[in-house]
Amino acid sequence: MAPAPSAVPGAPHGERTAVSATPLAVDLNCDLGESYGTWRLGDDAAMLSLVSSANVACGFHAGDPTVIRQTTATAAAEGVTIGAHVGYPDLAGFGRRFMDMSPESLADAVLYQIAALEGFARAAGRRVAYVKPHGALYNAVVHHVGQARAVVAATRTFDPSLKILGLPGSAVLAAAREEGLEVVTEAFVDRAYTPEGTLVSRSEPGSVLTDVEHVARRAARMVTHREVEAIDGSIISIHADSLCIHGDSPRALEMARAVRAALSDAGAEIRAFTR
Amino acid sequence: MAPAPSAVPGAPHGERTAVSATPLAVDLNCDLGESYGTWRLGDDAAMLSLVSSANVACGFHAGDPTVIRQTTATAAAEGVTIGAHVGYPDLAGFGRRFMDMSPESLADAVLYQIAALEGFARAAGRRVAYVKPHGALYNAVVHHVGQARAVVAATRTFDPSLKILGLPGSAVLAAAREEGLEVVTEAFVDRAYTPEGTLVSRSEPGSVLTDVEHVARRAARMVTHREVEAIDGSIISIHADSLCIHGDSPRALEMARAVRAALSDAGAEIRAFTR
Amino acid sequence: MAPAPSAVPGAPHGERTAVSATPLAVDLNCDLGESYGTWRLGDDAAMLSLVSSANVACGFHAGDPTVIRQTTATAAAEGVTIGAHVGYPDLAGFGRRFMDMSPESLADAVLYQIAALEGFARAAGRRVAYVKPHGALYNAVVHHVGQARAVVAATRTFDPSLKILGLPGSAVLAAAREEGLEVVTEAFVDRAYTPEGTLVSRSEPGSVLTDVEHVARRAARMVTHREVEAIDGSIISIHADSLCIHGDSPRALEMARAVRAALSDAGAEIRAFTR
Amino acid sequence: MAPAPSAVPGAPHGERTAVSATPLAVDLNCDLGESYGTWRLGDDAAMLSLVSSANVACGFHAGDPTVIRQTTATAAAEGVTIGAHVGYPDLAGFGRRFMDMSPESLADAVLYQIAALEGFARAAGRRVAYVKPHGALYNAVVHHVGQARAVVAATRTFDPSLKILGLPGSAVLAAAREEGLEVVTEAFVDRAYTPEGTLVSRSEPGSVLTDVEHVARRAARMVTHREVEAIDGSIISIHADSLCIHGDSPRALEMARAVRAALSDAGAEIRAFTR
Repeated sequence: MAPAPSAVPGAPHGERTAVSATPLAVDLNCDLGESYGTWRLGDDAAMLSLVSSANVACGFHAGDPTVIRQTTATAAAEGVTIGAHVGYPDLAGFGRRFMDMSPESLADAVLYQIAALEGFARAAGRRVAYVKPHGALYNAVVHHVGQARAVVAATRTFDPSLKILGLPGSAVLAAAREEGLEVVTEAFVDRAYTPEGTLVSRSEPGSVLTDVEHVARRAARMVTHREVEAIDGSIISIHADSLCIHGDSPRALEMARAVRAALSDAGAEIRAFTR
Repeated sequence: MAPAPSAVPGAPHGERTAVSATPLAVDLNCDLGESYGTWRLGDDAAMLSLVSSANVACGFHAGDPTVIRQTTATAAAEGVTIGAHVGYPDLAGFGRRFMDMSPESLADAVLYQIAALEGFARAAGRRVAYVKPHGALYNAVVHHVGQARAVVAATRTFDPSLKILGLPGSAVLAAAREEGLEVVTEAFVDRAYTPEGTLVSRSEPGSVLTDVEHVARRAARMVTHREVEAIDGSIISIHADSLCIHGDSPRALEMARAVRAALSDAGAEIRAFTR
Repeated sequence: MAPAPSAVPGAPHGERTAVSATPLAVDLNCDLGESYGTWRLGDDAAMLSLVSSANVACGFHAGDPTVIRQTTATAAAEGVTIGAHVGYPDLAGFGRRFMDMSPESLADAVLYQIAALEGFARAAGRRVAYVKPHGALYNAVVHHVGQARAVVAATRTFDPSLKILGLPGSAVLAAAREEGLEVVTEAFVDRAYTPEGTLVSRSEPGSVLTDVEHVARRAARMVTHREVEAIDGSIISIHADSLCIHGDSPRALEMARAVRAALSDAGAEIRAFTR
Repeated sequence: MAPAPSAVPGAPHGERTAVSATPLAVDLNCDLGESYGTWRLGDDAAMLSLVSSANVACGFHAGDPTVIRQTTATAAAEGVTIGAHVGYPDLAGFGRRFMDMSPESLADAVLYQIAALEGFARAAGRRVAYVKPHGALYNAVVHHVGQARAVVAATRTFDPSLKILGLPGSAVLAAAREEGLEVVTEAFVDRAYTPEGTLVSRSEPGSVLTDVEHVARRAARMVTHREVEAIDGSIISIHADSLCIHGDSPRALEMARAVRAALSDAGAEIRAFTR
């Protein structure tokens, strides 16, 4: 491995000075509010003490109104930024199955979800700050231009100051830029990357990383060196405004704590990308 | 038309002058946006050209996001005031079956619905102006104090400037007044009244009036004389800020047109009670 | 193309004798039971007096339990064969949006729907006799082998004597044959065909035929001559055990009556392909 | 209190002879299959190794088709009798909120659920053997004659050999007897009883018992002595064909194992009341 450029203060190169003046910072985002009715998923209260941005399910793939209220209230109390985690209308499938919705129908469904969440965010004294597609919709809008534009159009119609959180290079971020929305890129701390910088499919062996310490070191490197080791051992560059932590894995809290500690040790501040 | 008697008991003719100075006005409200997916209900576009306030279904008992968008857009274009027609989460039952929801759960469901509708109202350049419970919830909050307070609490949390539209004497209007919300009372032009001023149950014969001209005259009398003939022939006084027109009866449009004409003939202006 | 055998009585060729001995017969199938809750779709009672097979919605894309009971009871009373019209779990989309369900999940959903319908069929003294995929699932299983096999597997698990009704040449009929299920092919009386014998997409002009008399003659020709005029004017051969009549078009009943009359005039009996 | 008859084999008294000839036996029933989509509830596989009857959710308040298939398959493999745990159509409320469904609509919903479950039971080589109302419906049919009769009517229509499992003295068991259905009574091993023999409301302190050993002894006494200590310390007689074990409490498995052990120690066999 090539010597990593120092991220610590006092580094000699010209550019480092600027970095010193603007200390390293990254957002940690996590999917939350994914319980529904009697069914619990994840430990939202604990996770909300660890992340800076909460992707809150809005009732279409998870999250009934009471869960939404509790999640937004806790997020507000913890100072965590609230995002709308919009998904397909598919409770039984948890929004993880592609649905061939027309762009018009999808845009309406997305606006509905953002607006419903905004009601609870305001009740907690906050606002929805960004939109992140969930599950199969997240995957669809990497390539599906019609659905990507629908997500962006709905977001823009609702509030053009909302940001779109997504995968670098995705159609949804391209559409957002075209429409003048701010975009926020994310990387996945516990997912393997191909040499081309895309995610290794979950169906492949080794696609999901479970070694907590390894994941934590990887997360720190993403921030301090803007690089990650791909599945073939090559080093690829990566730039992410936000790191995505999964909240529903058995060791989710442990991993989140380890990532936070590693980032802190590396001198990186965890800070939401927006209010 | 016979000279209209004064509407205040024992008032001499002098008051008619005042009435002339403040011309008679009444709101016409109608349940709208009750289609869902492929299924159509009512002729929303036509009805929106006739009423002044639209009780728009919010997706829990009727109204998918696309229907909501279309209904709010048409209402905005017609200058019709938009209200949230909130109901129980029961598509199969069209919100017409009492559900023993806890006040907390109901309040969350009501806030969710108002907020979702608000998103589309804003997209159309308008705001939600009032809340009216639908179906079994409407009937429940006449007497059910817990659910009545839940509806009011959710409305107040969302926006304390919203009004509550309901039955005179109902628990929900009492709760609204206690919480400082403005209330709007309504009468039903095509429903029979008991001598005590309550509605004759739909299960009783003669409870629903279908003679269009009779209903139209009745509506005008409600506004001009503030009185209605009860099912036993007695005359009872009635005060309603708004008249409810049913939109899903076979002759709904015909009845709405006849009511408008009769009100116009009686010198009453049709005007929303709020923006 | 070989000259089409005459279908008129008294035709001289030897083959006509055989045809006379086995009179022409065809099934008429129609999608029914597509109402849901308060929402009505189609005139089921009238249509059930005209068709020989009813594709009954099972509650996932349309059809609540009460609608299912009423539809199966009327079908039984009219002697109409009952089929399970299975669809994606998507009420808001009426099952018309492709859902990327796993074969396992789809098979479970299909078995659930057949079984639920069977309960009502038995209550009416009948049995479910066949399975026809609905909407987007119908289109998917023309090519999507995984979902096609899932539909067949669920049907076979439930009852291997059930038939599969589908498009000639579709993956679902191929899978059914492989699994030893009987297949029934259908043609659409009011849809345009390409010269290759496939349906012209609904998005193309002229894809849906609305001239009642033209459709009726076309239907008769499909049965008597086993041929249809394609959209380019060429004559293609077609073999269908059943003709599909759409029940939700404005002139559905009129078209069904005209098709029946034309078939009768052509000497063809309308007869369900199975009990 | 009269001296309790011994439950051990070889007891000398005359009555014991009869008991020896018909050894003590009781059914253990548990609510199962209550997961939905991505959400898990309870440890079905473990519980199915401990009980003799499984009340399987049918998709209206819990249990998607895949969960139903897995639960029925495991129940069949374990030799556990399968019952339909029918509930209100209320996923968000887990069927725990009373819904004022008309008897006709409820009967249709119940038949639909039994039939859907039967499909999976048959696929596993078994049959649905009984019906038990779930949650708020269970509570409703203790007193609500219209809904009680609807449950019984639907069950009888589906299969008059099905049994109804319910609370002794409930309207649903009375209706079942009137209609000629076999009834099965149950007692709750971890619920406090009033001196009148009814359950102490869950909202009362002490209504739910959590001491595993105490519950186990109590269960054994219910079977061997047909009595239970009420919340005021008085001893009341109780007769139950089946003991209900809750599957979703934190210590559900531990409690089920302890109850089994205590029953075994008392010489009682755990045996389903039917195939």
